[in-house]
Amino acid sequence: MLDRRTLLVTGAAMAASPALAAADKISGNENFPRGFLWGAATAGHQVEGNNVASDQWFLENLKPTIYAEPSRDASNSFALWPQDMDLAKGIGLNAYRFSLEWARIEPEQGLFSVAMLDHYKRMIQGAHARGLKPIVTFNHFTAPRWFAAMGGWTNAAAIDLFVRFCDKAARHLADGISHAITFNEPNILMVLRSVVLPPQVLEAQKAMLAEAARRSGTAKFTALNAANMEDIDAMQVNLIAAHKAAKAAIKAVRSDLPVGFSLSMFDDQAVGKNSIRDAKRKELYGGWLDAARADDFMGVQNYERNMWTDKGKLPAPKGAPVNYMGAEVYAPSLAGAVRYAHEATGVPIFVTEHGVGTTDDTIRANLIPAALAEMKRAMDSGVPVIGYCHWSLIDNFEWVFGYRVKFGLHSVDPATFVRTAKPSAAIYGAIASRNAL
Amino acid sequence: MLDRRTLLVTGAAMAASPALAAADKISGNENFPRGFLWGAATAGHQVEGNNVASDQWFLENLKPTIYAEPSRDASNSFALWPQDMDLAKGIGLNAYRFSLEWARIEPEQGLFSVAMLDHYKRMIQGAHARGLKPIVTFNHFTAPRWFAAMGGWTNAAAIDLFVRFCDKAARHLADGISHAITFNEPNILMVLRSVVLPPQVLEAQKAMLAEAARRSGTAKFTALNAANMEDIDAMQVNLIAAHKAAKAAIKAVRSDLPVGFSLSMFDDQAVGKNSIRDAKRKELYGGWLDAARADDFMGVQNYERNMWTDKGKLPAPKGAPVNYMGAEVYAPSLAGAVRYAHEATGVPIFVTEHGVGTTDDTIRANLIPAALAEMKRAMDSGVPVIGYCHWSLIDNFEWVFGYRVKFGLHSVDPATFVRTAKPSAAIYGAIASRNAL
Repeated sequence: MLDRRTLLVTGAAMAASPALAAADKISGNENFPRGFLWGAATAGHQVEGNNVASDQWFLENLKPTIYAEPSRDASNSFALWPQDMDLAKGIGLNAYRFSLEWARIEPEQGLFSVAMLDHYKRMIQGAHARGLKPIVTFNHFTAPRWFAAMGGWTNAAAIDLFVRFCDKAARHLADGISHAITFNEPNILMVLRSVVLPPQVLEAQKAMLAEAARRSGTAKFTALNAANMEDIDAMQVNLIAAHKAAKAAIKAVRSDLPVGFSLSMFDDQAVGKNSIRDAKRKELYGGWLDAARADDFMGVQNYERNMWTDKGKLPAPKGAPVNYMGAEVYAPSLAGAVRYAHEATGVPIFVTEHGVGTTDDTIRANLIPAALAEMKRAMDSGVPVIGYCHWSLIDNFEWVFGYRVKFGLHSVDPATFVRTAKPSAAIYGAIASRNAL
Repeated sequence: MLDRRTLLVTGAAMAASPALAAADKISGNENFPRGFLWGAATAGHQVEGNNVASDQWFLENLKPTIYAEPSRDASNSFALWPQDMDLAKGIGLNAYRFSLEWARIEPEQGLFSVAMLDHYKRMIQGAHARGLKPIVTFNHFTAPRWFAAMGGWTNAAAIDLFVRFCDKAARHLADGISHAITFNEPNILMVLRSVVLPPQVLEAQKAMLAEAARRSGTAKFTALNAANMEDIDAMQVNLIAAHKAAKAAIKAVRSDLPVGFSLSMFDDQAVGKNSIRDAKRKELYGGWLDAARADDFMGVQNYERNMWTDKGKLPAPKGAPVNYMGAEVYAPSLAGAVRYAHEATGVPIFVTEHGVGTTDDTIRANLIPAALAEMKRAMDSGVPVIGYCHWSLIDNFEWVFGYRVKFGLHSVDPATFVRTAKPSAAIYGAIASRNAL
């Protein structure tokens, strides 16, 4: 097996090397470092379908619910993952990021499924068979229903339960994993809190979670991405502790496996005097940047920039392209987030998500080369970036928004599950294939 | 596509033909009719594993439960069904009986999964690809958890819900099905009632079902094979109505598809004067034999004989081989059940289950040829039998007994899921391959 740590360090060193950067400029090419990871990302619950033992499935199908629609068959990737990997390989990628579904692997507390661990092992082997490095997320928001019914991450017992899951999964799977990500966007609720959601949304969520608890016969039902505001800070303490303990558990199985987490990050820009930018960074990223200092890499997931004045956020500039939420699509935001992430942590950066939710694929097709060019400039200036995973390989279930929101390089027919490449897939694939802009 | 009705009628006519029977005797061969179905049977919940949206899974993992252990990964046949079919083909069978899991296809009320219907379509196509006729059971005891939480078959609304499921499944799958079975052993609770279970077992079941209802926030939780004694008669009325309506729904999609149900049947023998045998037959089989008169065939599932005196059942004769329950293994019982089933209904008989739960495979290896020889004698005397499915292809989850009870022609390693043929597999396969004893 390839020594991935060596590869990782070499790649980072190459990117950081002024000599190589100069050579690139002289030859006029825009090569990325050898071994740079070009991937696309998905998450189990969003693509697999029928994740019926999970907390999310339960919430989606509850009355009342804040979900626009249930996830149902999603993109049917539980069956069609070989097709998904063929797509990734077909457009020229060398990595595929996907996640394990804890609810499948431990559908009842303490009851672990070898069959489901075998399923993910087949996926890991399937990735290798296609020359794709498997980037594996151990938790992408979803958890088993029984876990959420215990209060989820509000309950300090969550740490040991997650560590036990990670230990079991690592023992079965770590051998073939290229990079392990413990948590996907564990700061998502801090991000949502900063958005100042309308009170009726928060009330609706509270009612949904109360009904979920009642139906479960427990006092509190909490999901990683659906919790009451008063619980968020306590959850963060447990999540950071769980990341550290889970990393140790994974490393205990395979010490040379690079392990990190992925943070939801903006390009936070200070506007004018007395900008609240630095305070907002603290609010959005909490203790995660500190935690990353001890990791092998940090995953950055960027979609937008925030322009912070002394009072709050500026609206999108007029005339700028916008995403499904009406937020500005700003190509340099990725590089901004990457630069800050490295500055704040000192570790190599892995862009584990970047993309745009839009039904207009020309926005995506324009965004990708522009964002990568800015990211390359950051790399040339010394920021070690080991890879880039576009979110997402295929259209999928976008949580509370349902299927209306489209992030895919490929569309998915909801009746036949047939995947069709959008023009952006070829544009991204061409960059990945030549490892150069 | 083969006209199966023609085949069925031809097969029955051949078996019933005195001329052919005489020819067989003259030539000394013991041929079964051309096209006779030689199969092995399984059921979704018992072999697939992780049927987490089902009523059974919920009951198995409940506290209190009457299940010895939960089904967990079962035989992992949700993933390994191609291996199972290879086994069936490999020993020389030409049919495979399996069931649809309603809980996978309709995990929430009214929410149908195309992905899961596609899964069963792949199985049907996989059977044809191997020259195996797919015998498909639409309901093999299990139902979705939401269905049981409505009271299951105690609720008259169950009929329309089951018919809707059968309609959806038939539209997706009927094309490739050889024979459709609506219900597997819908009389199982009448059989269990006749056994006179110890009161503590019935109390434990009552407690389990009460807790299931409480956890579901409903008044009554009832499964087809786990219900309180006072509900059994009302359930039978709904089940018989559901069979008739489901058959009509399936026929509406494909009128030439043979449809029936499978009954748990004993070889009920009258011993002495004033035997209660006939009354017991009424008690065990209820209105099902009448219902079968209008069907294309009747499925017979036989494991034992009952010797009825004027008071009750005689114990097993001393020295007879016994099964896991200590009941007599009596090879002619199958022929006895088949003869009576045809006499009572007038329709062709399909042996959809027959076998023995034992860890001593020599008992199984002896039973199969002996039972088939008696069945052949019944056929030679004019009873039309269209096929025989041995229960079971592989060791699996035997409901409340868990994994301790072994019915398989093949064993399954619980950790690796590796299947290994027992000697009985070759003995049965040789008979099937030569279509003769």
